[in-house]
Amino acid sequence: MESVRLISALFLLLLVSTGSSASHGSRRKKARKPCNNLVFYFHDVIYNGHNAKNATAAIVGAPSWGNRTILAGQNHFGDLVVFDDPITLDNNLHSTPVGRAQGFYIYDKKDIFTAWLGFSFVFNSTEHKGSINFAGADPLMNKTRDISVIGGTGDFFMARGVATLSTDAFEGEVYFRLRVNIKLYECW
Amino acid sequence: MESVRLISALFLLLLVSTGSSASHGSRRKKARKPCNNLVFYFHDVIYNGHNAKNATAAIVGAPSWGNRTILAGQNHFGDLVVFDDPITLDNNLHSTPVGRAQGFYIYDKKDIFTAWLGFSFVFNSTEHKGSINFAGADPLMNKTRDISVIGGTGDFFMARGVATLSTDAFEGEVYFRLRVNIKLYECW
Amino acid sequence: MESVRLISALFLLLLVSTGSSASHGSRRKKARKPCNNLVFYFHDVIYNGHNAKNATAAIVGAPSWGNRTILAGQNHFGDLVVFDDPITLDNNLHSTPVGRAQGFYIYDKKDIFTAWLGFSFVFNSTEHKGSINFAGADPLMNKTRDISVIGGTGDFFMARGVATLSTDAFEGEVYFRLRVNIKLYECW
Repeated sequence: MESVRLISALFLLLLVSTGSSASHGSRRKKARKPCNNLVFYFHDVIYNGHNAKNATAAIVGAPSWGNRTILAGQNHFGDLVVFDDPITLDNNLHSTPVGRAQGFYIYDKKDIFTAWLGFSFVFNSTEHKGSINFAGADPLMNKTRDISVIGGTGDFFMARGVATLSTDAFEGEVYFRLRVNIKLYECW
Repeated sequence: MESVRLISALFLLLLVSTGSSASHGSRRKKARKPCNNLVFYFHDVIYNGHNAKNATAAIVGAPSWGNRTILAGQNHFGDLVVFDDPITLDNNLHSTPVGRAQGFYIYDKKDIFTAWLGFSFVFNSTEHKGSINFAGADPLMNKTRDISVIGGTGDFFMARGVATLSTDAFEGEVYFRLRVNIKLYECW
Repeated sequence: MESVRLISALFLLLLVSTGSSASHGSRRKKARKPCNNLVFYFHDVIYNGHNAKNATAAIVGAPSWGNRTILAGQNHFGDLVVFDDPITLDNNLHSTPVGRAQGFYIYDKKDIFTAWLGFSFVFNSTEHKGSINFAGADPLMNKTRDISVIGGTGDFFMARGVATLSTDAFEGEVYFRLRVNIKLYECW
């Protein structure tokens, strides 16, 4: 009798453990509770011909009807911008940066503002060491939009997840500030 | 005797459940059966100086020997193209789009046509909401070629998989249509 | 008594198997032992106006103060380079290539050399068939730096991991050779 009870307990444990493991190759639902949840801000100052000292981003590709100093018409369609932006913990451009957001965005639609992003958060502080890599579409007129966390290194080794972007502020075509809520669902 | 039989059954179940779970950090083979399988077409109309109204893509980077209106010689090596292309369920350019393919490709080889792709499928319909993000090499003279699904959002939250591209049609250097068979192997 | 011993053994096995499975949505630590470990070298010869025959890479985007023949000042900030580089097993540029490294890098910082990389290793030999896709920040003055393996196809189907880059050699602004140590932690 004792062994039957033990077996039952074991059986239960087995079911629980199986249920919580990965569902590769199946449609089984996994818990959508992040294993890590971080919020940062980053600040993009686009070079416009007059702000070489402060600019953190520059147009490096443009359609044939555009140039690399002024963002093109038709919702900047075709403009490729490279950036190295400070990351801060709050929404103040002058707060001490905790890392750098580095990569590019390309405006990719004529009718409305939309961009495609490929970039990294690079950390080298006492708080965080390592990088988080992002890719995805940014329909930037939406209040919030989701892109993918496609990998990470160091403290964020093998991370995967979703980052929710929102435009926290912008000033004409020179400055914008993004709030990034990073939710990791795979942590190692 | 009864308990021994129970234990054997349990043991078998354990082996099965272990076999189907993820093999992080090991070489164990997982079932390669997709948890989601989708087929779409997308249509790229490249701006050539005369089709501003219909164009869905434009050259925004080119090597020093090229320009941004005509695709460069040497198999377009160095041309960077940004696109916002309609996605359809069948191979008809004029079918109602079910989403947009947005991102870029760069021709990256002098001897033959090959490109590197970074883009997203963006859906906002009753059928699908969310995005699928892709990256990979596209040796476009091959009948089929595989790129990676590197992430997803919304209905495709945390998706991973492989997308098989094939060129369904092309017209000179102005139009091409890709068939995309998306096979997801990680679904949440 | 026999059954109790059997149950104990089973219990142990269960714990082991559970511990090694994926920790989606949890902070549980996984073993950081690669399921595949590969070392390659790739060789980048940048077009500079005089080496059209040998060049494997070319500048295709530049900031407004730069051009597409000479890498820009300020640590090449804003230069976008497309490449199709030979991959070799040792550090000899003239060894028989085992594949091609194809994609792009963008110099993205004014103060020091740093780039953002998106590229693939494409193999089609008796040894390896398929591709490995990479993305991430490359602070190239560091002795080693980690980027993400974001996916793979063929022999590297669904691969994920980390690649450690180191600059094995460089000659002025025309040639560099990277050593890439690919450590996969998800193998299918």
